[in-house]
Amino acid sequence: MASSTGVLFRVHTFGESHGPELGAIIDGCPPGLPLDEASIQQDLDRRRPGQSRIVSQRQEADRVRIASGVFEGRTTGTPIALLIENGDQRSSDYDDMRTKYRPSHADYTYDAKYGLRDHRGGGRASARETAARVAAGAVARGMLDRHGIEVLAWVSSVSDLELACDPAAVTREAIEATPVRCPDPDVAWSMIQAIEAARKDGDSLGGVVTAVARGVPAGLGEPVFDKLDADLARAMLSLPAAKGFEVGSGFAGTRLRGSEHNDLFYREGARVRTRTNRSGGVQGGISNGEDVILRVAFKPTATVLRPQPTVDQDGNETTLEPRGRHDPCVLPRAAPIVEAQLLLVLADHWLRQRAIR
Amino acid sequence: MASSTGVLFRVHTFGESHGPELGAIIDGCPPGLPLDEASIQQDLDRRRPGQSRIVSQRQEADRVRIASGVFEGRTTGTPIALLIENGDQRSSDYDDMRTKYRPSHADYTYDAKYGLRDHRGGGRASARETAARVAAGAVARGMLDRHGIEVLAWVSSVSDLELACDPAAVTREAIEATPVRCPDPDVAWSMIQAIEAARKDGDSLGGVVTAVARGVPAGLGEPVFDKLDADLARAMLSLPAAKGFEVGSGFAGTRLRGSEHNDLFYREGARVRTRTNRSGGVQGGISNGEDVILRVAFKPTATVLRPQPTVDQDGNETTLEPRGRHDPCVLPRAAPIVEAQLLLVLADHWLRQRAIR
Amino acid sequence: MASSTGVLFRVHTFGESHGPELGAIIDGCPPGLPLDEASIQQDLDRRRPGQSRIVSQRQEADRVRIASGVFEGRTTGTPIALLIENGDQRSSDYDDMRTKYRPSHADYTYDAKYGLRDHRGGGRASARETAARVAAGAVARGMLDRHGIEVLAWVSSVSDLELACDPAAVTREAIEATPVRCPDPDVAWSMIQAIEAARKDGDSLGGVVTAVARGVPAGLGEPVFDKLDADLARAMLSLPAAKGFEVGSGFAGTRLRGSEHNDLFYREGARVRTRTNRSGGVQGGISNGEDVILRVAFKPTATVLRPQPTVDQDGNETTLEPRGRHDPCVLPRAAPIVEAQLLLVLADHWLRQRAIR
Amino acid sequence: MASSTGVLFRVHTFGESHGPELGAIIDGCPPGLPLDEASIQQDLDRRRPGQSRIVSQRQEADRVRIASGVFEGRTTGTPIALLIENGDQRSSDYDDMRTKYRPSHADYTYDAKYGLRDHRGGGRASARETAARVAAGAVARGMLDRHGIEVLAWVSSVSDLELACDPAAVTREAIEATPVRCPDPDVAWSMIQAIEAARKDGDSLGGVVTAVARGVPAGLGEPVFDKLDADLARAMLSLPAAKGFEVGSGFAGTRLRGSEHNDLFYREGARVRTRTNRSGGVQGGISNGEDVILRVAFKPTATVLRPQPTVDQDGNETTLEPRGRHDPCVLPRAAPIVEAQLLLVLADHWLRQRAIR
Repeated sequence: MASSTGVLFRVHTFGESHGPELGAIIDGCPPGLPLDEASIQQDLDRRRPGQSRIVSQRQEADRVRIASGVFEGRTTGTPIALLIENGDQRSSDYDDMRTKYRPSHADYTYDAKYGLRDHRGGGRASARETAARVAAGAVARGMLDRHGIEVLAWVSSVSDLELACDPAAVTREAIEATPVRCPDPDVAWSMIQAIEAARKDGDSLGGVVTAVARGVPAGLGEPVFDKLDADLARAMLSLPAAKGFEVGSGFAGTRLRGSEHNDLFYREGARVRTRTNRSGGVQGGISNGEDVILRVAFKPTATVLRPQPTVDQDGNETTLEPRGRHDPCVLPRAAPIVEAQLLLVLADHWLRQRAIR
Repeated sequence: MASSTGVLFRVHTFGESHGPELGAIIDGCPPGLPLDEASIQQDLDRRRPGQSRIVSQRQEADRVRIASGVFEGRTTGTPIALLIENGDQRSSDYDDMRTKYRPSHADYTYDAKYGLRDHRGGGRASARETAARVAAGAVARGMLDRHGIEVLAWVSSVSDLELACDPAAVTREAIEATPVRCPDPDVAWSMIQAIEAARKDGDSLGGVVTAVARGVPAGLGEPVFDKLDADLARAMLSLPAAKGFEVGSGFAGTRLRGSEHNDLFYREGARVRTRTNRSGGVQGGISNGEDVILRVAFKPTATVLRPQPTVDQDGNETTLEPRGRHDPCVLPRAAPIVEAQLLLVLADHWLRQRAIR
Repeated sequence: MASSTGVLFRVHTFGESHGPELGAIIDGCPPGLPLDEASIQQDLDRRRPGQSRIVSQRQEADRVRIASGVFEGRTTGTPIALLIENGDQRSSDYDDMRTKYRPSHADYTYDAKYGLRDHRGGGRASARETAARVAAGAVARGMLDRHGIEVLAWVSSVSDLELACDPAAVTREAIEATPVRCPDPDVAWSMIQAIEAARKDGDSLGGVVTAVARGVPAGLGEPVFDKLDADLARAMLSLPAAKGFEVGSGFAGTRLRGSEHNDLFYREGARVRTRTNRSGGVQGGISNGEDVILRVAFKPTATVLRPQPTVDQDGNETTLEPRGRHDPCVLPRAAPIVEAQLLLVLADHWLRQRAIR
Repeated sequence: MASSTGVLFRVHTFGESHGPELGAIIDGCPPGLPLDEASIQQDLDRRRPGQSRIVSQRQEADRVRIASGVFEGRTTGTPIALLIENGDQRSSDYDDMRTKYRPSHADYTYDAKYGLRDHRGGGRASARETAARVAAGAVARGMLDRHGIEVLAWVSSVSDLELACDPAAVTREAIEATPVRCPDPDVAWSMIQAIEAARKDGDSLGGVVTAVARGVPAGLGEPVFDKLDADLARAMLSLPAAKGFEVGSGFAGTRLRGSEHNDLFYREGARVRTRTNRSGGVQGGISNGEDVILRVAFKPTATVLRPQPTVDQDGNETTLEPRGRHDPCVLPRAAPIVEAQLLLVLADHWLRQRAIR
């Protein structure tokens, strides 16, 4: 189960940073949907490193191929295998990591769990694994698009630089207009400068991604454990470097009074609407037809280009020398990954809801 | 799956606020553990309403009975059924709710999902359902206790009243010393006054619960989707009124630089330790042996004793008149529920880890 | 998972032979279906012992109560809890079983698995647990009935007495006309005499139950592991005393040539039909619209009223003295249980199919 | 879930007969086990067509590559991806199948389920998919071998030619001595002749595979739905062409009396043993330490080289002309596939049992 998610739109991923291949299997995608490699590649290209100076300079071609589940351009209803070969593997960059535990990485915990680990590039713990999720998310996007559901994610803060904006007004174009994926050009410019400064400093920055899903029908999500926002929280915290999750008003909402926080219902044509959306589109774990809005906190990248004291796998105290390439800020690349996770959760709950009514 | 959680320590709950009974089935609890109703009742009593003036005055006896899975005082390895009869059902309090949608409750979303709903007391969406989780959590506590794992949760903020304290120093005694379950008596006193003021005002307050798990061995949690913190996020967001989740440094950590945020390793006797714990005891989704620390945001209770404009199930605009009893602040009762959810996730991952090594 | 089945129509059971209560939780039943205790009781009464001289004389009232998930006579879409109190518990009948392993029962294997066991009446391994499945099956029947699906099971052999009949012609009335549940009165008469003779002899008989599902639409079942007949095989082998399963031509079909065995397609009005039904209504794991036909082999009851050599839990060789009541032949009571399992599998796959198209 | 199996040793397969690749992902294999492609290839080679005149003459290289989950020759505990490229794809052999439904194949049911299908070679319904299962089974074999568990399967009947032998005496060498995989050379010879005759006749034969698992510890399997034999039944009926399953005495056992059928316990050194093994090594769904013995019925191959009347996807009556290559009897190749399924179920239950004690 560790590498699987979903009840009906079910995704299994595999692959390590420096293994031969990685990929995703989607089991449960409805039949008859148009699907080709190009549409998946589009999302993958947005996640890819090497897109700009502010992200990792690794060159990963991330070329996806569809190995099953599609016939004559349409999904068949059987498992869709999306495979990606690993290229550009400078494993020697990682020799120091074979025995030394990098601070705030998963080296030590993998050893503690498994008794051994593939140290190259972080192995299975590498953010490289998210390429498989983005590929799967692109398939979910294709399905949801036909039902009028649109998903967008953007960088809403980097370190203490925060974007104030109305999520309803954000567009894909504004997001993609700058390499930092912040839809406001001025804030984006400040973020880019901050990231470049951190990079030169051998240091790293964290931040927040905000995501919105529009056109979600009321009724998705389940009572109790499989609430829509519970599944979204799991999906987001399953991302590397994620440390927090909010839906709607989140932590800030805890400071309001009930009379201020409640989203009052009114009628708009045939629809029941709410005048505010502090619920973030989810009430009692079930979508209410308003935009689903969430925020994900990402810590600053653990890899910094500075010597750090640590211990090795034999328990000896030692020093980790800085080496290799690093991503001074994962946020720009995190945005398409958050989209993918949101798409996967929605696709699953969309199918689950169709089953019962 | 909606009402199930866990892979090996698997919990299924059932029951509505005003139905005949509610309960939890635990499937996968190891055999041979001592278990009786009294030890479960202890946890249930902490969740129960009517304990003090600052929580709901409903009287729910919440008397649990063990209907299966225990023989001569020990678990048998087969499903443990924990059943609780509903008493004190003043359904007539809820007549107004039959057709009118209460703001920021699940009335509308249940109707949208199912086409009908048990309106009495919120039905399945009622926080009453968490009694079953607390009962199940008590069984997990019994199991984890034998492996040296201790779980505590407390109220760390109510509205804008925040507790600043070292999670490592908090004790059960300090938590239970006041009805608000904040371990600092001065802050607790302020919180109680704020809650009473809100109650008199017919309004409600939100806040944050902080939880810690001590003695968790390194190695629990899985790569990718079933990360320990991902499962914890899901568990916490599945609670009524939860709007946010943080592990370790959370959202505040996004403002640090990597060089500040990293938890440096050192050696303490035979153990690998970290000097700080911004990771919250989880790295790469796997426990590292430090305390697991998390925070959950709860919005202010949606029920307020004031007239609110709304719509009814036929789409007519109408007014919801204030009526019945309400919980001006769920936080004090949320603490034992957060503990239960944390216990359930740890029990499940503890068993999963034993399976592989 | 041990006590759960189904992906969307999900059933969890609990309870031991001599514990306080047993029951089933159904999670995923669609909302809006009429459901009351009387309709469930009807199926339970057919499973109940003490109905005639040829089955166990235990008196189990098996009175079901609906504890959740139904509001004003209709299902709400939330978990339906079906609870049954255990009565008439002559535990002292089983004192000998506390330490001695009954041959071909689960006493030894439970001890080997769990290190302890509830010996009374077989504990969790008792066929009494099937009462919960029959109750759950009745709910599935209610759902499938609305979609025109009818399920029947009958006793087609007892020991070497075999019924030769056309499954398409069997009716509920013919099945229930005799206590042995064999639809042919002459064969039924012989079976009853054979069972009575075995009972007088303190011995027991096995046999075969045949089941048919009519009106199953084409398209239910999944490729690969979740084939409809694979899920049916699991469902049937999960019954106490079951030792074999066949769908369609079964073992006898292995002796035919492909040219004899193939079911040729033809057209009947708008439907694609097959001229024969050696496939048993399932091709490639997916229903083809013909009757689903299966057979389940039940071994002779392990309880015989004769002294049997055995060993006890300390490994001492000893003798098990005959005692208590026994079921000389489980077949008559097995028929409604087979129906229940067939209903549960069909309900689950029916919902799964609705999700994808 | 359709293409997944197992709770802890979890296998996902993908791929069609004529798609680019097929494969299996194993999620949950314990870390530290030696694993290389050669050991998997060994099992794959036994399943491969083209090994002798009595099986299909298709040439499938079935070369497996390990794409993840293995580092420096040992499993890492993360998902193991086993990928196999499809070669020798004479899709034009199947042009007739694009619109016409082959009798007793899955063509019609796939169309009914999905509304479209990959007709080439049967697509996902092709027995080619079992290559992925055999590869996964080889990994399970490596794990179980270290715990002293050995699994063997052989052809015990072809049409009406039956092998009478003691399963305890069968060896791998005897099985592999002839291409028909029947361990008795005389019976094997008759079977081969029968199969060749059927092939010349353009017809096909069915038969039975018997399998045994030796060294299985007592305690594997779960009460109720996940009984060891229930999971085995599902695993076996999920194989193409499987129509029946027996464990231990199976259908023949229904003709015995309880006093004849019971397996009496005795003590052998420290072990509790049974004098007979009509239970087939499973009692109450849990292994008892005796050999697990089962039988699987396979119908005669549906592909026959004779014209057959049928209908096409538009409902027109038509004739299917014989064409292409066919497997006159799947039994010889079914034996290693049955082994694989048995291995997968045992590996899963072995891990599940380790989790609880």
